[in-house]
Amino acid sequence: MGSFTLSGKTATLSDILRMLSPRSVAVIGASSDAESLRGRLMQVMLGHPYAGRVYPVSRSATEICGLAAYRSVAELPEIVDLAVLIIPARFVAEELERCGRAGIRTALILASGFAEEPGDDGAARQAEIKRIARRYGMAVSGPNSEGFANLAASLVPTFSPVMEFEEGAGPAASAARRPQLAVIAQSGGMGFAFYDRGRATGLDFRYVVTTGNEVCLETFDYVDALLDEGSVDIFLLLLEDVKRSDTFERVAAKALAAGKPLIVSKIGQSEPGQRAAAAHTAADAGDYARYRALFERYGVIEGRDHDEMLDIAAAFAAFGTRLPAGNRVGICTASGGGGGWLADACVAAGLEVPILDPLTRAAIDVHLPPYGTSQNPVDGTAQAIFSLGYAELARLVAASPEVDGVMVVASTRRAHTLERDRAALTALAQTATKPILFWSYTEIAPESVAVLGEAGLPLYRGMHNCARGMRAMAAYRAARERFLR
Amino acid sequence: MGSFTLSGKTATLSDILRMLSPRSVAVIGASSDAESLRGRLMQVMLGHPYAGRVYPVSRSATEICGLAAYRSVAELPEIVDLAVLIIPARFVAEELERCGRAGIRTALILASGFAEEPGDDGAARQAEIKRIARRYGMAVSGPNSEGFANLAASLVPTFSPVMEFEEGAGPAASAARRPQLAVIAQSGGMGFAFYDRGRATGLDFRYVVTTGNEVCLETFDYVDALLDEGSVDIFLLLLEDVKRSDTFERVAAKALAAGKPLIVSKIGQSEPGQRAAAAHTAADAGDYARYRALFERYGVIEGRDHDEMLDIAAAFAAFGTRLPAGNRVGICTASGGGGGWLADACVAAGLEVPILDPLTRAAIDVHLPPYGTSQNPVDGTAQAIFSLGYAELARLVAASPEVDGVMVVASTRRAHTLERDRAALTALAQTATKPILFWSYTEIAPESVAVLGEAGLPLYRGMHNCARGMRAMAAYRAARERFLR
Repeated sequence: MGSFTLSGKTATLSDILRMLSPRSVAVIGASSDAESLRGRLMQVMLGHPYAGRVYPVSRSATEICGLAAYRSVAELPEIVDLAVLIIPARFVAEELERCGRAGIRTALILASGFAEEPGDDGAARQAEIKRIARRYGMAVSGPNSEGFANLAASLVPTFSPVMEFEEGAGPAASAARRPQLAVIAQSGGMGFAFYDRGRATGLDFRYVVTTGNEVCLETFDYVDALLDEGSVDIFLLLLEDVKRSDTFERVAAKALAAGKPLIVSKIGQSEPGQRAAAAHTAADAGDYARYRALFERYGVIEGRDHDEMLDIAAAFAAFGTRLPAGNRVGICTASGGGGGWLADACVAAGLEVPILDPLTRAAIDVHLPPYGTSQNPVDGTAQAIFSLGYAELARLVAASPEVDGVMVVASTRRAHTLERDRAALTALAQTATKPILFWSYTEIAPESVAVLGEAGLPLYRGMHNCARGMRAMAAYRAARERFLR
Repeated sequence: MGSFTLSGKTATLSDILRMLSPRSVAVIGASSDAESLRGRLMQVMLGHPYAGRVYPVSRSATEICGLAAYRSVAELPEIVDLAVLIIPARFVAEELERCGRAGIRTALILASGFAEEPGDDGAARQAEIKRIARRYGMAVSGPNSEGFANLAASLVPTFSPVMEFEEGAGPAASAARRPQLAVIAQSGGMGFAFYDRGRATGLDFRYVVTTGNEVCLETFDYVDALLDEGSVDIFLLLLEDVKRSDTFERVAAKALAAGKPLIVSKIGQSEPGQRAAAAHTAADAGDYARYRALFERYGVIEGRDHDEMLDIAAAFAAFGTRLPAGNRVGICTASGGGGGWLADACVAAGLEVPILDPLTRAAIDVHLPPYGTSQNPVDGTAQAIFSLGYAELARLVAASPEVDGVMVVASTRRAHTLERDRAALTALAQTATKPILFWSYTEIAPESVAVLGEAGLPLYRGMHNCARGMRAMAAYRAARERFLR
């Protein structure tokens, strides 16, 4: 296992995993006051069925949210796996020192008021934290962080409002193991927003980690540890800066070798974005061109916003083991206009939409009215969709040696066509050797989401994101083959 | 008023308006069979409270959906304002001729099987329709169209599934007249999808017109007529081709002079997109670079998909009379990461995010904790948003002479912060002299949509669309000032 501090005592990747999956947690600064962030944190944590032990630590209260409170970490009945510090910045160093002396090896610091603050005081406080962490060899997350969520363990040390809407015990149990996602972001608001937007779509999130100022641990340290742990299949990373490019290169190579895509967005591509990153997490956002070159070298996939990154992840979640061998897509559609518009989007994303081979066309033509076309985009017209169904038309197109993946343009306003086609859609998803993605031009009925989700076929609202998803899979496969060669 | 046929008798713009707002309609090929398109059309039409008269015309039935049916248009009790033809392509010419002889001046042809079909038969049928239209000076919409919707009149001669979900009488009556939208698209599926996606957002649609093969009337003829009519403020146009560039230039100039933005997307930017357009509506999609040059000359705004076009329209609907004087935006945020990410999106869209002036900064700084910043993006932090509210922070930023518009980064997962701020948000929207747009990084609560919608402030899900909306307004104002100079 790698290590990540360069001097002083050394924390290990297993410490990071202990932080993310602790058996016991002390909350230093805990409160029952639901109007305060400290009280919200307790409410959110205790609102989830975490099986480990939670110890509130408070100088003023003896009981918090029904739990006995302790005056100091020194008085706890055990050496906890994780200390969460939600106290004013000026008290953090003193408490962190106390944690170190008590033998606690991991800490999460939620307070703001460190290097992101103008002037010298905050920077000095941050340097002091770094010194303490090294002295005791502690793994420290933050400061200026919004905490994290281990959804599989229902452990959510955060005051993120997003987690107040949780309904319980993390990803739904399902017969087949579905690909697991981890989100890692410096920004708490942005990080939890991935989960907030993505959970409704049927993606399985395992971790959301917000990293703040990254005084000790940075984004790629968490990726490194989670690659060792092995439960995460797809990573969504929102970066303000990369503090150690050697760590980045080593971890990106490790992820690529493991076939676990890193889907990133880099804040600070513009001058005002860089100014914002510096003010936000004291990040030195650096030269974006240099980042792009590194991303390209290691098959790191860039997305431009929450939804695009989630949509790319959805493509990998469904077809990550059946990546397209090239950039050529077949489009089938009931709407001629939709097929043409999506073809433009495909080309803009770097895909090709070639004319299909004669054998495939002949197999399709027998089902088309004279005003349809099998060229590609294949305009099945409403008539052929009605008689064949989306699944069979997609199967015919996917069989063409001229295409590496298929996109289906659908109206999912009503689910009845899909519901009638349920068995064929499931069979298609299971037997397909090429990715098959759906784009709905109309509003999407919840029943349509359910039918396609159960079948295992991704459904997109944005045609550009659908095209980007396909293109990202093809680019990732090419980068990986180049890398492993 | 202009005219639009080049030879033969001439229909006028008032004929187009009569077609879109008829007092009486004959449906040739009407049926009671809800499983057929002909029956669906009747169901959809009669499911809306249209105040005019509807006459089914059928060779086989004497009553359809509770209405007396007529064997021929020649037998109708009046000369109807509009004939809708939903019959097989091979019978269309004969029936259209009969309409012309009966003195009917406008016709909508829904059948497919014309010039979009390979081979000569379809093209010949289309040429025959053109001849008949000219002979009688009829305004003919289609063929190969999915019909239209006049939402103010609750007239919906279409079988679009989107219109089956209508709840009644078109745009909600409200005290203040809100800007009205018209959608015009060659593709039926794509055209009605604008309405389907947009109606939930509070946009007021007045017309959706799908134009099919455009044998007589093309997109800009409808725009021309609706500019004369005057009820439409914003146009959303999905083009496969422009058949007469002189018409386009004249109408685009007329729209720009009237201050009524044309928001377009052009299908056929790529080779496969052009192939699809040809197969779909026999369109010659042509050279995209030429289109772009024309769009630029006349301030025509390009959007890349449904949601981007609708999001741009939402910006104009709220701030069309208070367009930004330049490209400089102020960003205020409770999430430092969100501010930086949006700043990048703004720069990518062609906007600037300048550092604010000292006076404005001083007015903001008194409300910020030390770890916030007033530079721009203005990171108010959760603390300042809680004490000031989004409206007051936006007002302070908008007062800066350094910015032409403001964007607010918000979490709208819970509506309580906005609800508490309701009066201030309404006052802000009413008194602002610069556009103020909201972007939510979390999922959006329906109550948040309601509060901001009632206040008159657009709320975006996609940060890039928010930036594009602001940029489009600035570009439109600049183009218009150049044009009127």
